[in-house]
Amino acid sequence: MNSPALSLSRRLRQSPFEGRSHHGARAASVYNHVVLPTAYASLEEDYWHLREHVQIWDVACQVQVQIQGPDALRLVEYLTPRDLSKIVPGQCVYAPLIDEQAGIINDPIILCLAPDRYWLSISDSDVLLWVKGLAIGAGFDVEVTDPDVFPLSLQGPKSETLLSRLVKEPLSEVRFFRFIETEIAGIPLVIARTGWSGQGGFELYLDAPSEGERLWDAIVDAGADLDLRPGCPNLIDRIETGLLSFGNDMTLRDNPIEAGLDRFFKMGKAAEYLGQKALEQIAESGPDKRMVRLVVPGAAIANPRGTYAMEVGEAKRSGEVTSITYSPRFNCNVGLGYVPAEASDVGTEVVIHGPDEFVTGQIANNDWGTSG
Amino acid sequence: MNSPALSLSRRLRQSPFEGRSHHGARAASVYNHVVLPTAYASLEEDYWHLREHVQIWDVACQVQVQIQGPDALRLVEYLTPRDLSKIVPGQCVYAPLIDEQAGIINDPIILCLAPDRYWLSISDSDVLLWVKGLAIGAGFDVEVTDPDVFPLSLQGPKSETLLSRLVKEPLSEVRFFRFIETEIAGIPLVIARTGWSGQGGFELYLDAPSEGERLWDAIVDAGADLDLRPGCPNLIDRIETGLLSFGNDMTLRDNPIEAGLDRFFKMGKAAEYLGQKALEQIAESGPDKRMVRLVVPGAAIANPRGTYAMEVGEAKRSGEVTSITYSPRFNCNVGLGYVPAEASDVGTEVVIHGPDEFVTGQIANNDWGTSG
Repeated sequence: MNSPALSLSRRLRQSPFEGRSHHGARAASVYNHVVLPTAYASLEEDYWHLREHVQIWDVACQVQVQIQGPDALRLVEYLTPRDLSKIVPGQCVYAPLIDEQAGIINDPIILCLAPDRYWLSISDSDVLLWVKGLAIGAGFDVEVTDPDVFPLSLQGPKSETLLSRLVKEPLSEVRFFRFIETEIAGIPLVIARTGWSGQGGFELYLDAPSEGERLWDAIVDAGADLDLRPGCPNLIDRIETGLLSFGNDMTLRDNPIEAGLDRFFKMGKAAEYLGQKALEQIAESGPDKRMVRLVVPGAAIANPRGTYAMEVGEAKRSGEVTSITYSPRFNCNVGLGYVPAEASDVGTEVVIHGPDEFVTGQIANNDWGTSG
Repeated sequence: MNSPALSLSRRLRQSPFEGRSHHGARAASVYNHVVLPTAYASLEEDYWHLREHVQIWDVACQVQVQIQGPDALRLVEYLTPRDLSKIVPGQCVYAPLIDEQAGIINDPIILCLAPDRYWLSISDSDVLLWVKGLAIGAGFDVEVTDPDVFPLSLQGPKSETLLSRLVKEPLSEVRFFRFIETEIAGIPLVIARTGWSGQGGFELYLDAPSEGERLWDAIVDAGADLDLRPGCPNLIDRIETGLLSFGNDMTLRDNPIEAGLDRFFKMGKAAEYLGQKALEQIAESGPDKRMVRLVVPGAAIANPRGTYAMEVGEAKRSGEVTSITYSPRFNCNVGLGYVPAEASDVGTEVVIHGPDEFVTGQIANNDWGTSG
């Protein structure tokens, strides 16, 4: 099938950057009801450029849900097993949100703007409706809104060089997962040292949509000598980095222990949270399946739809590939997927039911090696 | 800007029909995390064909939210100002869902499968999360799920001729907004006399995704002599019919009285519902703005992004176009939009700030005339 063109409508919320970011975009998707460019030159060219230079990404689709009011912290705590009791203004925390059965609702970065005001910078589901529903149903004293705040991301090794030309604060003092409130060309911004790549960078939160193109242009002008290009979250980079994608690698049908997100929280946090009982049971009995990294030698496995079945280990237990792409750096396919917990050791053989034939790979460690 | 190609991923839920429906689709969007084809031959050719023949639409994106359990009816009632106390199994009801401020959350068709089991056949927002949140927060005794149920739509004047070849029940006995449980080629289906066009037709709800292509093929085979073609919701037809599109013509920032949806409910229903107080206040004081139909003579106004500002009436009050397209039948542009309530009379002049120039039109009546 040839890919149809993406048709626009008012229903798709307008990014303040799209007058710039859509130029040269060859492909795009829709994420949180916003257009997300997904390829410029090509997946591979974009990948190499991201690793070497700096890219400007229109990630307005990373929508904000604002929780404000006397019960804001108590509600944010209620949404996630991650302990947020020590969160301070200027801090970002990655936190899976779960439902009553510990299924993953979303995996936002939570920004603490004030002790009674938080942004959830979300992946692709209507967290606004989830949080509003819970807050109204259970009577939390908060306002839950989706403010007109749109992130722009600078990613790649030259991000800091570029951004330091534009803001007056010394960026070396902005630690990983911290943010400052500052401005560029007189445009107020929240700037965080975060971003959905393995190459380092910053996310700039704009709350004045009418300034979107001026902000974009100011950045592009400042980056002329740095080979700055428009880009977007890159499938190869994010799989190599082990960044899970909500909707692809985890859904409401998966829990955060299965997905390996338990490295972001400790069981037994003091504050009450939804799904606690279900999660404690899973932690105690152990999950049925585990998210693992996969390496698959041989030709590139194209996989626009993600899912392939696989047989895992000698017992041929069933597993599922959730994301896969060809790594031009490792010269093999790299993927993510779920395997039975009892067959999740590094080095275990997997047979993937690929598009054309069965292909054999192995469970890899975090460096994409296959020895434990 | 050239439209980028729509890129697919596992994150976009797979329609059981896409192996068929994506063939020949020139454009597509994403709706409820599912790909929705939006054009085949062309907007205008698809329109004429729909008015004369029968089309098969992949509307798997019209996702179902199932509410089941002892409190199911009480919860469904809680979601909407529409009185559902008399709903019976086999009945469909169009009902706006609102939040605590009477903002529109979604506008599903509610199917009563049993007194304790309902499907909300939704427009584009994660109603699953909204209803789950409310149910958990307020302690309703229900299960809220998104079952693997995918609608296929047959629309156009020959729909009944076609469908009657495939089901054993006499379709003349299936009234508007009623459904039956039946089968085609041995595939169990819920079939309702509903659909998002003005040309009549049926929606077929499939709960066995693996049968999607076989169902599609059985229908296509049966329609060979009827000029059956694949199609999709058609912008011209739906505006002419006055069908509002959630996300385009109404959002959380609009209430159902402003949107003119109050023709679907009466104030003062007995059961408790969310937003009642806010809605009663709006009903009492009257809405600030009203959804109206607009006719605009002259050249076609292209409008992929929907919104144009407009000046309404002699006082040049501000209004907003939410949808507009050129009607080849009326030889003018037809649109929908909000105008100040005090300037909403049929015949009122509007000046639209179009893409290239200001154009003048009028508020129309339900037959697209401009005399009250």
